[in-house]
Amino acid sequence: MGFQEVASALSKLNNTTNATNVSQESFISLDQGDPTIFESYWREQGDRCTVVISATDFMSYFSDISNTCWFLMPELAEAIKRLHRAVGNAVTEDRYIVVGTGSTQLYMAALYALTSPGGPEPVSVVCASPYYASYEQETSFVQSGLYKWEGDAYTFDKDGPYIELVTSPNNPDGSKREAVVNRAQGKTIHDYAYYWPQFTPITYAADQDIMLFTLSKSTGHAGSRLGWAIVKDKEVAKKMTKFMEISSIGISKESQVRAAKILGVIADDCAAGSDNFFAYSQKVMAERWEKLREVVKGSELFSLPKYPQEYCNFIGELSEASPAFAWLKIKEDVDLEGILKGQKILTKSGTVSGADKRYVRISMLHQEDAYKIFLERLTLLVNGKSMVENVV
Amino acid sequence: MGFQEVASALSKLNNTTNATNVSQESFISLDQGDPTIFESYWREQGDRCTVVISATDFMSYFSDISNTCWFLMPELAEAIKRLHRAVGNAVTEDRYIVVGTGSTQLYMAALYALTSPGGPEPVSVVCASPYYASYEQETSFVQSGLYKWEGDAYTFDKDGPYIELVTSPNNPDGSKREAVVNRAQGKTIHDYAYYWPQFTPITYAADQDIMLFTLSKSTGHAGSRLGWAIVKDKEVAKKMTKFMEISSIGISKESQVRAAKILGVIADDCAAGSDNFFAYSQKVMAERWEKLREVVKGSELFSLPKYPQEYCNFIGELSEASPAFAWLKIKEDVDLEGILKGQKILTKSGTVSGADKRYVRISMLHQEDAYKIFLERLTLLVNGKSMVENVV
Repeated sequence: MGFQEVASALSKLNNTTNATNVSQESFISLDQGDPTIFESYWREQGDRCTVVISATDFMSYFSDISNTCWFLMPELAEAIKRLHRAVGNAVTEDRYIVVGTGSTQLYMAALYALTSPGGPEPVSVVCASPYYASYEQETSFVQSGLYKWEGDAYTFDKDGPYIELVTSPNNPDGSKREAVVNRAQGKTIHDYAYYWPQFTPITYAADQDIMLFTLSKSTGHAGSRLGWAIVKDKEVAKKMTKFMEISSIGISKESQVRAAKILGVIADDCAAGSDNFFAYSQKVMAERWEKLREVVKGSELFSLPKYPQEYCNFIGELSEASPAFAWLKIKEDVDLEGILKGQKILTKSGTVSGADKRYVRISMLHQEDAYKIFLERLTLLVNGKSMVENVV
Repeated sequence: MGFQEVASALSKLNNTTNATNVSQESFISLDQGDPTIFESYWREQGDRCTVVISATDFMSYFSDISNTCWFLMPELAEAIKRLHRAVGNAVTEDRYIVVGTGSTQLYMAALYALTSPGGPEPVSVVCASPYYASYEQETSFVQSGLYKWEGDAYTFDKDGPYIELVTSPNNPDGSKREAVVNRAQGKTIHDYAYYWPQFTPITYAADQDIMLFTLSKSTGHAGSRLGWAIVKDKEVAKKMTKFMEISSIGISKESQVRAAKILGVIADDCAAGSDNFFAYSQKVMAERWEKLREVVKGSELFSLPKYPQEYCNFIGELSEASPAFAWLKIKEDVDLEGILKGQKILTKSGTVSGADKRYVRISMLHQEDAYKIFLERLTLLVNGKSMVENVV
């Protein structure tokens, strides 16, 4: 299901998505990665991240005409660079930054920038399975003549130019990824939405041609719809900026100024070596994963991916990934999404990620009460094997 | 030139676009409709429109799951409806509202909603000349297989389904418009960005299938990138919402909450019958047009469109349009954009609007000092006919 279908379904069920009023009768919607988990952290920060916007602010389309991305606010560019330096997850020196309405819009801007009108046929776009289901839709929905979704990178065998999308850590399965096709005519787009300390050990500063990041997953502010791309080549950055100009004449400055504030506060805290958002969120995610693994551990039917212990340069110790999504597998050849739905747990089937129906993607980013009820229901399922068999 | 080229050119010229530091040596950039003209009004409003956003606000993707447009904030929907009721420019009762990153994104959402995959060929998209230059680019840039730009509606003679874009008042020439093709297989998108009292007499409440509006032109807050569509048919509204979901998972909530505040304050003022933004801005625009007509009046070489006196239901008296753009024409068969550029006035050539080089579109929305220098330079050109002849 997409966001629209989720909203519609939950609305009809007289239910909530943000789980503030979750009851035993409610469906728990864990099929979208709505990142409300960190709300309590931000509440504790009081006014440190508050922004005040007056009536005369941001009236012009332009933000910085000397910048390749002319609608990018200088304070946001600066905050983004400071944060990456503090976390050590990406190289920003001598790179171009392009902002978008979420990283979603930037993904399409990147496709536009890496292709040209007039080719003999659309450029193939591939991604190793299991992949983020929305990529297929984003690539295909207006039936562009510039590019064409070709599915799983592992089985891609067409000649000619192609674009490989690399998501690392991967959505849905949390694994670290590198490009798999590696041919001369290939270009890459790296989606690093989840390459932050709360989700995975930071083991190197990423330095790829086009790297996508988003506020939704880095800080949990999904409603701001604020993403950024770090781009090596100036012409690619210019063309991505052109895409943003044609498709929306830039992006919200209100979101930009707020993101600048939030990212700046995190960067300050990290640089000062004090308590900071990532230290907090890494603990919260690790605790959730520990509880989930505890539930699944005793099961012969269900399993979760295993992640290696790695030294995280940011937290300065060995740690294990605690991804934003749990990629749950059931041993039998059954429809796991349907089984979980029977337990009032809404998840995303593996089938939309190029995997099969034995897998589901479960968001780990919802609020605490929803997460607790999810664990209770999963525990019932794991212990009461008969229920699964009944469904089967 | 697009925004990118303007920014780049002005940056190289060591110049400004927002005209706060305009000097006699500066190029005056009137080729984009950057609506900074009303800044002084908003300054006078003090804190009435100030919004304060705290760290925990807007963390979720969702705004209102009971609404067809699930990311639309209820307070914005309410403010939009109240404003249209107060102004009388559009019917909103029993209509669906979809918000977008500017009306630009909504235009593409409407194209998506009005077409379907699998047709024998892309649906033709037409607009009566002279048309908004960006429409062509927005329709063509990703070479969609769903729709195809076919240019001037007046000369359109293909059979089959088509979409006609109707901009009223029109950008660039300020005229009131209706659909011109009117065939059975046609659908329309009405762009009412400029159907507000400051630009044209409000003579009826518009009630078309898809009507686009934008904060940029209604209140002058271009940097917020906030547009809205009023849609009759639920399925069309759902499909437009789906487009917004796939292309950017909704839009900025910070922009939405600010727009709700600003539109709400205007609606309150209008409803109270007190001083209000439109009464002010209508006067400012009318004064600018009076000055411009004064300059052009004595010229045998230059001319401007004439607009009829009409009774404006909002201001309650006869008035004349004072469009956001001046559609200036030169009598001789010369390149008017080039001539004005020679006088350091940057404008948009008529050639990109399906008209010819004798026309230019000049933004009337820039700040006062830029407008004054523009008038001075235009006066020199009008009086010193020789300069034009030299260029010719």
